[in-house]
Amino acid sequence: MNEIKYVYSFGGKTAEGRADMKNLLGGKGANLAEMCHLGLPVPAGLTITTECCTAYYDNNCQLPCSLMPEVWEAMKQIETVMGLKYDDAENPLLVSCRSGARSSMPGMMDTVLNIGLSSKTIPGLIKKTNNPRFVYDSYRRLIMMYADVVMEKSEGLEPAEGKGIRKILDEMLDEFKREKGYKTDTEITADELLNLSDAFKTKIKEMLGAEFPDDAKAQLEGGIKAVFKSWNGKKAISYRRIEGIPDDWGTAVNVQAMVFGNMGNNSATGVAFTRNPATGENQFYGEWLINAQGEDVVAGIRTPNPLNDATKNEQNKHLASMQELMPETYIELDSIRLALEKNYRDMLDIEFTIQEGILYMLQCRVGKRTGVAALTMALEMMHEKLISDKEVVMRLSPEQLDELLHPILDSDDEKKYNVIARGLPAGPGGAVGRIALTSEKAMEYRKDHIANILVREETNPEDVEGMRAADGILTARGGMTSHAALVARGWGKCCIVGCDAVHINFDAHEITIKGKTYKEGDVLSLNGTKGWVYDKEIKMMDATENPRFREFMNIVDKYRTMSVRTNADTPEDAQNAINFGAEGIGLFRIEHMFYGKNSEEPLAKLRNMILANNTKERILALNELEPFVHKVAMETLEVMDGKPLTFRLMDPPLHEFVPQTEEKQRELAKEKGMLYENIKKRIDALHEINPMMGLRGVRLGIICPEITEMQFRALFEATAELIKKGKNPVLEIMVPLTIAVTELKHQKAIADRVQKEVETKFGIAINYLYGTMIEIPRATLVADKIAEVAQFFSFGTNDLTQMTFGFSRDDVNAIVNTYIEEKIIPNDPFNTLDQEGVGQLVQLGTERGRTTNPTLKIGVCGEHGGDPLSVEFFYKTGFNYVSCSPFRVPVARLAAAQAAIKCAKN
Amino acid sequence: MNEIKYVYSFGGKTAEGRADMKNLLGGKGANLAEMCHLGLPVPAGLTITTECCTAYYDNNCQLPCSLMPEVWEAMKQIETVMGLKYDDAENPLLVSCRSGARSSMPGMMDTVLNIGLSSKTIPGLIKKTNNPRFVYDSYRRLIMMYADVVMEKSEGLEPAEGKGIRKILDEMLDEFKREKGYKTDTEITADELLNLSDAFKTKIKEMLGAEFPDDAKAQLEGGIKAVFKSWNGKKAISYRRIEGIPDDWGTAVNVQAMVFGNMGNNSATGVAFTRNPATGENQFYGEWLINAQGEDVVAGIRTPNPLNDATKNEQNKHLASMQELMPETYIELDSIRLALEKNYRDMLDIEFTIQEGILYMLQCRVGKRTGVAALTMALEMMHEKLISDKEVVMRLSPEQLDELLHPILDSDDEKKYNVIARGLPAGPGGAVGRIALTSEKAMEYRKDHIANILVREETNPEDVEGMRAADGILTARGGMTSHAALVARGWGKCCIVGCDAVHINFDAHEITIKGKTYKEGDVLSLNGTKGWVYDKEIKMMDATENPRFREFMNIVDKYRTMSVRTNADTPEDAQNAINFGAEGIGLFRIEHMFYGKNSEEPLAKLRNMILANNTKERILALNELEPFVHKVAMETLEVMDGKPLTFRLMDPPLHEFVPQTEEKQRELAKEKGMLYENIKKRIDALHEINPMMGLRGVRLGIICPEITEMQFRALFEATAELIKKGKNPVLEIMVPLTIAVTELKHQKAIADRVQKEVETKFGIAINYLYGTMIEIPRATLVADKIAEVAQFFSFGTNDLTQMTFGFSRDDVNAIVNTYIEEKIIPNDPFNTLDQEGVGQLVQLGTERGRTTNPTLKIGVCGEHGGDPLSVEFFYKTGFNYVSCSPFRVPVARLAAAQAAIKCAKN
Repeated sequence: MNEIKYVYSFGGKTAEGRADMKNLLGGKGANLAEMCHLGLPVPAGLTITTECCTAYYDNNCQLPCSLMPEVWEAMKQIETVMGLKYDDAENPLLVSCRSGARSSMPGMMDTVLNIGLSSKTIPGLIKKTNNPRFVYDSYRRLIMMYADVVMEKSEGLEPAEGKGIRKILDEMLDEFKREKGYKTDTEITADELLNLSDAFKTKIKEMLGAEFPDDAKAQLEGGIKAVFKSWNGKKAISYRRIEGIPDDWGTAVNVQAMVFGNMGNNSATGVAFTRNPATGENQFYGEWLINAQGEDVVAGIRTPNPLNDATKNEQNKHLASMQELMPETYIELDSIRLALEKNYRDMLDIEFTIQEGILYMLQCRVGKRTGVAALTMALEMMHEKLISDKEVVMRLSPEQLDELLHPILDSDDEKKYNVIARGLPAGPGGAVGRIALTSEKAMEYRKDHIANILVREETNPEDVEGMRAADGILTARGGMTSHAALVARGWGKCCIVGCDAVHINFDAHEITIKGKTYKEGDVLSLNGTKGWVYDKEIKMMDATENPRFREFMNIVDKYRTMSVRTNADTPEDAQNAINFGAEGIGLFRIEHMFYGKNSEEPLAKLRNMILANNTKERILALNELEPFVHKVAMETLEVMDGKPLTFRLMDPPLHEFVPQTEEKQRELAKEKGMLYENIKKRIDALHEINPMMGLRGVRLGIICPEITEMQFRALFEATAELIKKGKNPVLEIMVPLTIAVTELKHQKAIADRVQKEVETKFGIAINYLYGTMIEIPRATLVADKIAEVAQFFSFGTNDLTQMTFGFSRDDVNAIVNTYIEEKIIPNDPFNTLDQEGVGQLVQLGTERGRTTNPTLKIGVCGEHGGDPLSVEFFYKTGFNYVSCSPFRVPVARLAAAQAAIKCAKN
Repeated sequence: MNEIKYVYSFGGKTAEGRADMKNLLGGKGANLAEMCHLGLPVPAGLTITTECCTAYYDNNCQLPCSLMPEVWEAMKQIETVMGLKYDDAENPLLVSCRSGARSSMPGMMDTVLNIGLSSKTIPGLIKKTNNPRFVYDSYRRLIMMYADVVMEKSEGLEPAEGKGIRKILDEMLDEFKREKGYKTDTEITADELLNLSDAFKTKIKEMLGAEFPDDAKAQLEGGIKAVFKSWNGKKAISYRRIEGIPDDWGTAVNVQAMVFGNMGNNSATGVAFTRNPATGENQFYGEWLINAQGEDVVAGIRTPNPLNDATKNEQNKHLASMQELMPETYIELDSIRLALEKNYRDMLDIEFTIQEGILYMLQCRVGKRTGVAALTMALEMMHEKLISDKEVVMRLSPEQLDELLHPILDSDDEKKYNVIARGLPAGPGGAVGRIALTSEKAMEYRKDHIANILVREETNPEDVEGMRAADGILTARGGMTSHAALVARGWGKCCIVGCDAVHINFDAHEITIKGKTYKEGDVLSLNGTKGWVYDKEIKMMDATENPRFREFMNIVDKYRTMSVRTNADTPEDAQNAINFGAEGIGLFRIEHMFYGKNSEEPLAKLRNMILANNTKERILALNELEPFVHKVAMETLEVMDGKPLTFRLMDPPLHEFVPQTEEKQRELAKEKGMLYENIKKRIDALHEINPMMGLRGVRLGIICPEITEMQFRALFEATAELIKKGKNPVLEIMVPLTIAVTELKHQKAIADRVQKEVETKFGIAINYLYGTMIEIPRATLVADKIAEVAQFFSFGTNDLTQMTFGFSRDDVNAIVNTYIEEKIIPNDPFNTLDQEGVGQLVQLGTERGRTTNPTLKIGVCGEHGGDPLSVEFFYKTGFNYVSCSPFRVPVARLAAAQAAIKCAKN
């Protein structure tokens, strides 16, 4: 029988894997292999493939029979490279067991360190290291981790008390320290650690009903299983849902020889970025801790030292850097940094350990970065000729670009107030909101649309959903590579970490900062770019113009072929969108004219139109509305001069324009000098059981053609006047909610008549495009017929999604959330177009429309027009343009360029 | 240039056309040609094709240039055959100009008679006939018709007064008669008719500003144009809309030599059916009038004489029959009747005229008939070996079959009351309703769902919509071939005509019958089968069992291949449907259990389920509901023993099950011992803006899996118990509102668990089919995936139509009506499936479903399942079954059989 190969070895400047084998070996495993090929000092190890993880789950959480023999075989190579022997009484090898998925999921899965310590191997290691305290400290760490990760989480043994075994052991440790009057772990002696370990084992037996295994082989198998098991831990699932990582990818497991940063003051551990991940500057940037294990840096328990001068800041400038304390090793690390960047052609995030003066590389991966950093690095790497301009376009995700456009604190307003505390600037931008001390509270605020700042001692993976719900994150502890910093940076969220002035009192639901108390619910403002905290509500402002942004967008537009327009309903919005690079307006909703400020009067007139009892009354109201429509249309056309502007005929939700309470109806009656009963009767008549599918859109224009006529007249006359003034209005008019070509013909007949009249009146010809929204499923099915009359289609994917799913957006929020949780649907179809279902109708409508009208212009004006994944789909479907809100225009431009590059590749 | 042939001649026992050229020559033209081929006495003529009508409209209402030369050429043949000459001073030929569409549109288009009379031809005709009164009477008729039809309606000349020219001339005629003290037209002398004609011509010049043309050639051209023009008259359009006749078919024009039934007492005119159109009996059946023109019979102005003994009834038995007065001509006519039936193999409706003892055939066409008559004739013709049993199936339209199933007056109840008036039984069945004296009133009643009887002097084409809105029709005048009788019979509507005891007083909004006064709004009952009128509200009953019906349905089932099921929610409905031939239940809506009588208690329990604040409370409520669901399910499965029964999981409109007013909410709170505020909060939480697209169907089962569990348990246990009792329950369960296969998997997991539990409990295996509704557009698009889990699809075409159109059925009634009027859509998509749009999704879903599951069973359970056109579509699409309401089952069976026969032909 031909067994599947589950284990890949690495170490000794060679490896079975490569960087491009991420899908099989996970990111960590593939990069460890790659570093071996580059000749870098990597502790030897083996990687168990993601396929094995899938097999483990397919096999009802059992390891494949062939796995462990393969592992033991590969362990021999590790022993050879490292000159140690696993489970050996004299010269024992210890290993770590870590997860490593295709896509980084920092802190979401479990790790076991120091595997291989047992009553058999401990004496040998003590003899060899001559450091019993180090050995016993490693041992108690193994016991604590193993009891938690392997015995409780993986094997399902749970203490009866309702709190986890880890917490119980932690409390024992704290209790012991309190008794002894110790402040830090380092004060505990070797003997005391030995006694503690014994006490831990007794407690474990008592609480979990099983012994901590005193067998190195059993420990390793337990560790491997535990890592696989943690792929489906609650945190990991939650993270994958947010990040959109498929559940069936699985994780690899890396078993690697342990090296120790905690073997004394010539040992250390650290993490670094080959460039600054917050600003993008080309400076080696990192943190380290002497005499510590890697988890100490990442967990944020101690504020770490700066790696070098470039990394010093207000919080850590008093701490010694590696550049200062270990200059030779620092130079070695810096040369590794350069070799890695040259090989990977990107900024990397690395982990290293120094064991008794010898440097080991434990990890490297493409580093997460802020949007600003991504922009800076991409352009600088292009200037350094490391990457091409096409690669530059692909280096910034649309989300990162969006982050660049995010608001920051208004600097003028900010100057007025005193900084109450300073921390590390872990996530850029600004945030203002109420203090939330728990993830639950943050989620509660989010639900009520209340801006909030999640304030925590430090965050851990359990906080992920609360962090997402918060507008900003503030932690009292942790460094730039702590959990909070990594996660927030990944999301482009404003975040300050290591702000040790913050003291949290959970029971009182309050925090104190320098003696002053703030209740949960009080307002804080964060400047995440500088790490400054305020106790005032500071104004927010848009990110200022960044010259790199302009340079980047110029490159983007070089590769972009699909046009990007904006949805705008006022001259101001139109100007704003032009500034963001919009090439036209794809959706101007005429009824939105009546929503804004200073629209009291026209709104009242619109209401008159809606409440008219007959055509005559309606025409009177329309005559009063027309000048207003004319004016706003003309102003907007003037702003857009030379760029196309698509007006959508009115599609007002009629009932929303009239008062619903008796009191307000009586007021209106009084105001209009009408009987309350008559007003009420008319308003009741407007009531619909399902207004989404009632008297809307073109239906209104067919039942009341005079409404259509007024709009065409106002738009044609505005256009004619601008032409007379020498302007270049590019008019497009579209009909909403079309289900059949006959509707378009009906409305076109009105348009043609009015057009002739206006042309005669002004003595000039008016050119315009006549088109339609495609937003009802039926329209996509008969698009070939519709395209015989329509000169352009604008897909309204919001309504199309509603009807195709039978989801009323107003009503199904809870349903959609449950559906995503239960994995009924992969994501919210109102955010990202449902390509599997709705996408079919979009494709069908596009293809059919072009069969009868090959020059048919096709675009989209739903919110999906600003969603990168959807934009890529629209590009592939052959759209001429997307239209989105002004602030999303740059994002859509980038998404369109990336889609073009991706498609050219395939 | 090769001109299109627009004119086809007929006459002298030969013709250029044939019966099968209806599309080109119209029904009348094709059948006139056919009668010539059969050697029957047909006045010579010519037919202008329907293509010419289309050309006329395409050409902006201008006749093609080649037409009139062709007409004059063909006129020469008519002159030869008839031995007369058009526009000749000595021996003038007069012609009629009549419409003739593909499908009969009785009275809906215009006719001009006596064309060719002018100052040039009148003297010669007087000389030849020696009958100046006849000639001048014909002349004044020509003037009146021509002024109305050609000058006013076709040429658009309108009198300023606001009333039509016809009305003005009619009033002149009435005024003259009043002055002279004449009661009938026949009293007017020849000289007086001449003077009247002159006065008419002067009046026409005055009112219309144009001269009545004294030129035979101009008259003929005007007449042809007028007939074409009348194709788009208001009446014609309205009729076509109701009958579903396409607007682009156009009408032919028949120009035919005039023969006169009004040349004295050896002249006559009549209409007849080759068999009785009301009962189907094989008896020659007709009416005639001596010394009259055809329009006199059809218009219902005089009550006509019976044709023969078989035609005599209470109203006309005192009048002389043709059989008695003209026995030789009657024998000739009877032999023509037999020749026609042999040739056409169907019952025919014929028109004839006797001019001075010589019989002429003016028209023959397949006759309209009642459902009963159609059934009788079809079976008798089969027994006479005139037609095959396959033809029998095609001879009854599904609508006629439906008519057979229509209710009639309860004969026992009817016996208790006195008949207050008798008329002609023009439309069978019974009707009870309020008196409506105008079409508008009838439509108003219909809108409010109030049964009504339209009571009119006589009906005319303007009344068509009111007749449709009425439950029954009663006219004071007119015969069995009057407008009201023809139209009502076509629709299978209860109708009594010629009920001369009825006197209508419009101004007082009342009628009097034998001295007793009835107000508009008072109730009448009609026995349309006997022609009896009652002034009491008589009970209605179902048509009694008809042995011919059983014979017919057996033949139908011989040709039917698609299964027909019913929608039923109670054991009683199920039994009823089996009696109508249902082969299973296609839709049992579990929530409908709680609607019926005696369901107070379960309804309260259902309400508890809906109002539950949490899962625990909900489970308590479900536990109470389960025995009820179990019981009704078991009873219905027992009735269906051996036939499949598809249960649909609950899809209740949640908010409809809870009280909406404060008063009722307070009552409920009291009843449940809850705080009003809590009840209100929960009910408010259930409120949805668009409930049609909210928390419904499977969404409920996913959010509250316990609801799904209860239903599966109740159904499985009911099935298990029946199996234990030796019964054969055929269980099918389907999930509503599915949008993705993941929903089906989610619910199936619950079903599988419950199934195992029930199987263990009862110690038997349960077999059932697991399927889904396909009623959301998305489901059709991903049907291939859905069919991997679903064993059957049941298309819910009601909801599918709603979502595909974006039409909320509750809200768009007025919109749909306007859309049909404005020709935006051809008909109500909720009545007849929209094949162009929704049909595409149905086909797509069917094809895709079968790609992954070739044995997938597919059916429909929307109301379209009982609509014949839709049934044909479902057959063609490859459905296994349709399911409809119990009363529509026979209709669906017939439609399915006809579809199979039609498709086999193609």
